[in-house]
Amino acid sequence: MHGRVPGDICFDDVWLLRRRSGENSRETKGQFLSANMCFSVGVMAAMYLTKGISGAHLNPAITLSFCLLKKVSWNRLLPYCLAQLLGAYVASGVVFLLYYDAIMDFSGGVLTVYGQNETASIFATYPSEYLTLSRSFFDQVVGTAMLLLCILGLGEKRNTPAPDKLIPPIVAVIVLGISMSMSANCGAAINPVRDLGPRLFTLTAGWGTEVFTCYNYWFWVPLVAPLVGGILGSLIYLVFIEWQLEPLEDPQTHSNMRSRPSLTWDSKEKEAQKEASF
Amino acid sequence: MHGRVPGDICFDDVWLLRRRSGENSRETKGQFLSANMCFSVGVMAAMYLTKGISGAHLNPAITLSFCLLKKVSWNRLLPYCLAQLLGAYVASGVVFLLYYDAIMDFSGGVLTVYGQNETASIFATYPSEYLTLSRSFFDQVVGTAMLLLCILGLGEKRNTPAPDKLIPPIVAVIVLGISMSMSANCGAAINPVRDLGPRLFTLTAGWGTEVFTCYNYWFWVPLVAPLVGGILGSLIYLVFIEWQLEPLEDPQTHSNMRSRPSLTWDSKEKEAQKEASF
Amino acid sequence: MHGRVPGDICFDDVWLLRRRSGENSRETKGQFLSANMCFSVGVMAAMYLTKGISGAHLNPAITLSFCLLKKVSWNRLLPYCLAQLLGAYVASGVVFLLYYDAIMDFSGGVLTVYGQNETASIFATYPSEYLTLSRSFFDQVVGTAMLLLCILGLGEKRNTPAPDKLIPPIVAVIVLGISMSMSANCGAAINPVRDLGPRLFTLTAGWGTEVFTCYNYWFWVPLVAPLVGGILGSLIYLVFIEWQLEPLEDPQTHSNMRSRPSLTWDSKEKEAQKEASF
Amino acid sequence: MHGRVPGDICFDDVWLLRRRSGENSRETKGQFLSANMCFSVGVMAAMYLTKGISGAHLNPAITLSFCLLKKVSWNRLLPYCLAQLLGAYVASGVVFLLYYDAIMDFSGGVLTVYGQNETASIFATYPSEYLTLSRSFFDQVVGTAMLLLCILGLGEKRNTPAPDKLIPPIVAVIVLGISMSMSANCGAAINPVRDLGPRLFTLTAGWGTEVFTCYNYWFWVPLVAPLVGGILGSLIYLVFIEWQLEPLEDPQTHSNMRSRPSLTWDSKEKEAQKEASF
Repeated sequence: MHGRVPGDICFDDVWLLRRRSGENSRETKGQFLSANMCFSVGVMAAMYLTKGISGAHLNPAITLSFCLLKKVSWNRLLPYCLAQLLGAYVASGVVFLLYYDAIMDFSGGVLTVYGQNETASIFATYPSEYLTLSRSFFDQVVGTAMLLLCILGLGEKRNTPAPDKLIPPIVAVIVLGISMSMSANCGAAINPVRDLGPRLFTLTAGWGTEVFTCYNYWFWVPLVAPLVGGILGSLIYLVFIEWQLEPLEDPQTHSNMRSRPSLTWDSKEKEAQKEASF
Repeated sequence: MHGRVPGDICFDDVWLLRRRSGENSRETKGQFLSANMCFSVGVMAAMYLTKGISGAHLNPAITLSFCLLKKVSWNRLLPYCLAQLLGAYVASGVVFLLYYDAIMDFSGGVLTVYGQNETASIFATYPSEYLTLSRSFFDQVVGTAMLLLCILGLGEKRNTPAPDKLIPPIVAVIVLGISMSMSANCGAAINPVRDLGPRLFTLTAGWGTEVFTCYNYWFWVPLVAPLVGGILGSLIYLVFIEWQLEPLEDPQTHSNMRSRPSLTWDSKEKEAQKEASF
Repeated sequence: MHGRVPGDICFDDVWLLRRRSGENSRETKGQFLSANMCFSVGVMAAMYLTKGISGAHLNPAITLSFCLLKKVSWNRLLPYCLAQLLGAYVASGVVFLLYYDAIMDFSGGVLTVYGQNETASIFATYPSEYLTLSRSFFDQVVGTAMLLLCILGLGEKRNTPAPDKLIPPIVAVIVLGISMSMSANCGAAINPVRDLGPRLFTLTAGWGTEVFTCYNYWFWVPLVAPLVGGILGSLIYLVFIEWQLEPLEDPQTHSNMRSRPSLTWDSKEKEAQKEASF
Repeated sequence: MHGRVPGDICFDDVWLLRRRSGENSRETKGQFLSANMCFSVGVMAAMYLTKGISGAHLNPAITLSFCLLKKVSWNRLLPYCLAQLLGAYVASGVVFLLYYDAIMDFSGGVLTVYGQNETASIFATYPSEYLTLSRSFFDQVVGTAMLLLCILGLGEKRNTPAPDKLIPPIVAVIVLGISMSMSANCGAAINPVRDLGPRLFTLTAGWGTEVFTCYNYWFWVPLVAPLVGGILGSLIYLVFIEWQLEPLEDPQTHSNMRSRPSLTWDSKEKEAQKEASF
């Protein structure tokens, strides 16, 4: 399992690099739709790269939900999340190196969180001025719940499954839809490490402690709310979809996203986890 | 069957939430194309979620047409439409909660149907100033007829069927095309509850009775015209496409969208309805 | 065969309606990318609708090339082209009815070919001011050659075939690419009837004879050049691709886009034509 | 093998024509996203056209990496790169002919590399003003490494393979993502001949030697850095992905992108190369 961690770093590199660079270019050549499409392409590429290795876990909110749904073993939760965080941090560093000249040119050399020339939001998410704290928490809960609700059924053989080999682009399109429709309030992190990793990077790269203290220590919202939202979305999926489905005739093949109950976690965990993957 | 209703609410939640939030962000960060893409992604996700449960009926115009085409039993029509309406209403509420701060910030706290700061069109559709009543009725008839004409053939084995597992994204692309090309006149509802649900919500949430009385009680157009358009589109499909196709050699498998004539509605309805689904 | 003609009208309705309405909305709510995407979605939907009936022939340039390549019988050429023209004319009429209020509002009631308020280019294509005649002819030849070159190989089993059931969206994406990259000069008709049908409609609907006489009788360019381009593209495909491919082991199945040489046109034409279709 | 070279020219024609014309239209009717989408569609079409003939080698950085990975024989490297360069040159010529009127109209007849009316960047890439030399080198290395990292795994049966017949559009989407997110600094060539071919064309077509001397002979960066990046990306893929995968049970079929070790290059090279293709 330890051999997998570098893989996780690697895909987060890919994933966040796209997002970051997409957002960076917003100031220069990018556009709202283009930036979100870059992010979405990054999700697709990362899933194709790592689904066969670690199950393409890019998001602690998804990993936690899958642990609760018994699709992933609990002892994978912490190492996966750490690898995701490390990947997000490293990817932010690569983006910073790539666009150092552009950032310095744009900001006049002053790395700041507030104002017209702020560059912190290239990396982490920050709330809109008009937004209350409870609204931003609700925003992240709803966005992440929607994410889980939409992806949990994609591999369900008893429902309308997507083609196995095309799940990465379909998940990418879903992420694109959520990013575009729900980033107006506070940037649609819907992923704790996608926010914390870049925020830690900006802390160490010259933006200072304001990246954590600003907006009255708002940074905890995109850390906690997606976890709550992921669990909520999984529950909605269970109640309204999963429990309404009737069993297939051959229970051995009834889903490519659930561990086979006849296998024990320890001996066959890897195999089961491959099927349960995102 | 009653167990399906919550599922229908649920997918309408997903579906309309996307549309509403996409449209809402038009005022802040979204764009015409982005908003329509969000709507389209919502259709895809909702179809993957519910096709195996209720047949992914998101639109009374489609459900009514399918009843006429004998693909869905008539006694499903009313409960489906009520569930669709309830879903649309609840989803509008979630959108209102999500973007309450943004709406208040934009409108200055005055929820109104007319003028520069109107916010009612975030939820329901309203006609352009230049539009006559008969033109708007014709607009909704043509748009919905196009929708039915384009989707009815997708599962037809005697024609060029789309891959079964990719019908949700292909329908989503068709909805995207219709939304983009036909929303200039009066918002391309092409779905009675997608319009009535949010309109009822705005009635109860503070916009007042003007949402129904404005433009000389125009609200009935997106309620009635899509039903007429759906039937018209189905007829065009039958005459120009369906009746021109030659039977396959094995009649048992000639379509995944038609009920098998050898099965009775009562005993095998569920199975047939699954195949007939959208 | 005669029973097919209505089908051809019907798909051209769909096809051109999308294009026209997309272009129309350019003045009001559409955008360059959105308008081209509508056009592309229309191609996809029309292909799914009619490929099993008439082979999805939407374009005389493609039909002529397929006749030369012996994929379609010569006696289908004229009826197909007439049906395509009729479809384009009728579709233009539907678009005119749909957007009559918008067109009158925009143009102030004066239907004209020149000037700021011209509305003729909603329907047919017209050259940019800077463009010479020979350049516009070359433009249409290159665009249509590219179209044929790109689509002829999609069903070739000896090359890298696209999935049979996904050829409509892939052709649509190719049309999208050509429309977007080659419409700057003179609107990327790349289809004689897509231009002549709407032009005839505007002649009869009030724009007058200027739609034919303007730019020194330029209208013949998008009529003739696409036919030349189609043949040129087919030749390039034959020389550089088709003749370089090695035969499959089982010659019976070596392509789903070529007529089987062992079948005669007369007895088995229909079957062969189905395979050769676009 | 020599018979393949014209095929390579041909696909580069297609490929670059799209890109060039997309970029050209940026000045007139195109947009950032549209131009990148045209490029991406060109990649897809070129791959479908030539994958069965030459393996769809469009990029010396990819060809070199595949030689190092033993997926392509070394004696193909030089002829492939020359054909790619020739294709890029010819395609630039076609674009120049197509848009000659537009270029003359825009530039006032003065073909120049600097200033408001420069037209050289329609063809080759040039760095942003703010960019340092080392940063631009790093930019091209990262972009090309990302490209290789993302596409190398698409055909790997032991991982999450993409559908064989849909690899062209998936590669196109990845190229779209990289183009959009990484062209802000210096145009995202990520392909030596895509830059050198058009640059040579502009040298001969009237822009003069400045296309090579400008920005202190910057032209070598998009020639050399993508080769370095391609090798780096391949190494990252090997270390973090390929070497972490476990063998399939049937080694004969464990990948459609690797040459079978039991075949010798000479006798079976063609077959192996077909599998290894992009």
